[in-house]
Amino acid sequence: MAANPHINPFSKRYKKELDADQLFQQLRAGSLSALSQAITMVESQAVKDSAFAKAILQQALPHSGKSFRLGITGVPGVGKSTFIETLGKKIVEQGKKLAVLAIDPSSNRSKGSILGDKTRMEELVRSDRAYIRPSPAGKTLGGVARKTREAIILCEAAGYDFIIVETVGVGQSETAVHSMTDFFLLLKLAGAGDDLQGIKRGIMEMADMIAINKADGENATAAKHAVREFKNALHLMPAKDHGYTTQVLKCSGLNDKGVVNILNVIINFKQHSHNNGSFDKRREQQELYWLHQTIEDTLKSRFYSNAAVISKMIEIEKQVILKKLTPFEAAQQLLDIQG
Amino acid sequence: MAANPHINPFSKRYKKELDADQLFQQLRAGSLSALSQAITMVESQAVKDSAFAKAILQQALPHSGKSFRLGITGVPGVGKSTFIETLGKKIVEQGKKLAVLAIDPSSNRSKGSILGDKTRMEELVRSDRAYIRPSPAGKTLGGVARKTREAIILCEAAGYDFIIVETVGVGQSETAVHSMTDFFLLLKLAGAGDDLQGIKRGIMEMADMIAINKADGENATAAKHAVREFKNALHLMPAKDHGYTTQVLKCSGLNDKGVVNILNVIINFKQHSHNNGSFDKRREQQELYWLHQTIEDTLKSRFYSNAAVISKMIEIEKQVILKKLTPFEAAQQLLDIQG
Repeated sequence: MAANPHINPFSKRYKKELDADQLFQQLRAGSLSALSQAITMVESQAVKDSAFAKAILQQALPHSGKSFRLGITGVPGVGKSTFIETLGKKIVEQGKKLAVLAIDPSSNRSKGSILGDKTRMEELVRSDRAYIRPSPAGKTLGGVARKTREAIILCEAAGYDFIIVETVGVGQSETAVHSMTDFFLLLKLAGAGDDLQGIKRGIMEMADMIAINKADGENATAAKHAVREFKNALHLMPAKDHGYTTQVLKCSGLNDKGVVNILNVIINFKQHSHNNGSFDKRREQQELYWLHQTIEDTLKSRFYSNAAVISKMIEIEKQVILKKLTPFEAAQQLLDIQG
Repeated sequence: MAANPHINPFSKRYKKELDADQLFQQLRAGSLSALSQAITMVESQAVKDSAFAKAILQQALPHSGKSFRLGITGVPGVGKSTFIETLGKKIVEQGKKLAVLAIDPSSNRSKGSILGDKTRMEELVRSDRAYIRPSPAGKTLGGVARKTREAIILCEAAGYDFIIVETVGVGQSETAVHSMTDFFLLLKLAGAGDDLQGIKRGIMEMADMIAINKADGENATAAKHAVREFKNALHLMPAKDHGYTTQVLKCSGLNDKGVVNILNVIINFKQHSHNNGSFDKRREQQELYWLHQTIEDTLKSRFYSNAAVISKMIEIEKQVILKKLTPFEAAQQLLDIQG
């Protein structure tokens, strides 16, 4: 596949010639290159880029928040890319501008990440109204999630009114995606035997909809059973704040069956949640969640990267194991070092 | 019931007349009053008691660690007290000294906490070799858990070689008990319908044994089914480090059925885990867990109790909700205040 400007848009020209104001004007005017360059700046780890990133985010912020944000998760093999391609085409056909982002803290840009190889979304990628961006590289979920949150702000300022955030569910990434989206869709396969895992990790409880994908051909009967089983399981879950019952639907992303129905339910949910105020409430809770999560992550990383703490840690841990210090007294000694 | 010296041992005499060294000598010599007084000092929130508590813990620490620590959890109504009474009598009959402690962060000493009303353990409480201590009062799980951990150290220094820590499972208290015990026993009722909750919250995964209590009379058949169901569910759980398969057993604490079998399995586990080194490994991991948990809890509570942070928090949160600041930028501003 030839280099696609939607996916690999990095261009040094912008960095050299444009300041944040100019780049932001181009972004607002609909330039895909400007959007991509802005996201690249936000994703950059380089200290020299941070003032630029901050400036452009600060300008974008008042223009953000007006999209509908759809989170999609599912294990590898569930058919996420094909589903998103089919769903995404319907969204752009309705005249909406769609951005597809991803969270995958295990990804490494050079090794190819989810959404990195978009041959499977090749129809969607050709649409003028679709923007597809691979998962940012990063070592920690917190870092990757922050970059994706900031990319959402930029996409919204650029006029994208429908944003899909997908994840393969590494570590706590479903929680991260759930905490930045308005609707959380869990894709499942019939009879895949991972149901218990999903319950255990709280994914089912987070889901606003469960869709059994690949529910045709020889899977049709199993899918019917799966729908019933998931419905039963959901009965035991606590009710949701938004008062909307989690639906369990069947679909086939590949054969475009049931996908329009799913989209209709989502659009219905959007209307419903705007009407009863739960949309705004969920957004507010998410903002505060990220505020406090960032504070707590930073407190920890500051502490554990403190040179004096690092140099004392091994010795203190040894004293705890040798019963020379209680863990509580040891914690106090380390905390006293940081001051 | 008359005041019982095992339960309500507070005596001002010790505080006035004895220093930490003397109290510790009496504790080592087997004085129940000294043990109770030492635990009371460790539980005290008063600043004036903290040096005393620290001194006595530091003396106790080298004598600690030699007991077997058994965690027991189960929902209210599962029959924990009766089960512990029946099991505890068998333990003291084998010549062991047994201490029973509790974790219940929802408890308030004045309102009566779990283990506060021990009429249900009245036989056990009369044994010379049993020591029963109610859950310490406290607002946070971290605080209550720390006090219980320190009470374990004192009980071990006082020669108690079998320690039961029970919890009703409020909040994350099962995780706390699991993180301070060598064997974690989950009591269940047949057909109680809370299985999914247990899976979801990871309790089943933590359990080293599941015992279906009240498994006689008209519950006998349901208990048999429950054993099979739990065994099936456990097959889907990841294998444990200690290489010991989680057993599912039936019992009746009230009618003393199956309890001796449970004790035998626990004693067998103890031997097995000592032999393969997993006992020591688990203890080490627990010590480090409490070290890092204490550090992280303290970092957070220091931050959120900082007067300058408190006075700025509401304003900053408002700016985030009004989209004047990203949550990440807002976090940075608050972190800069603390310095």
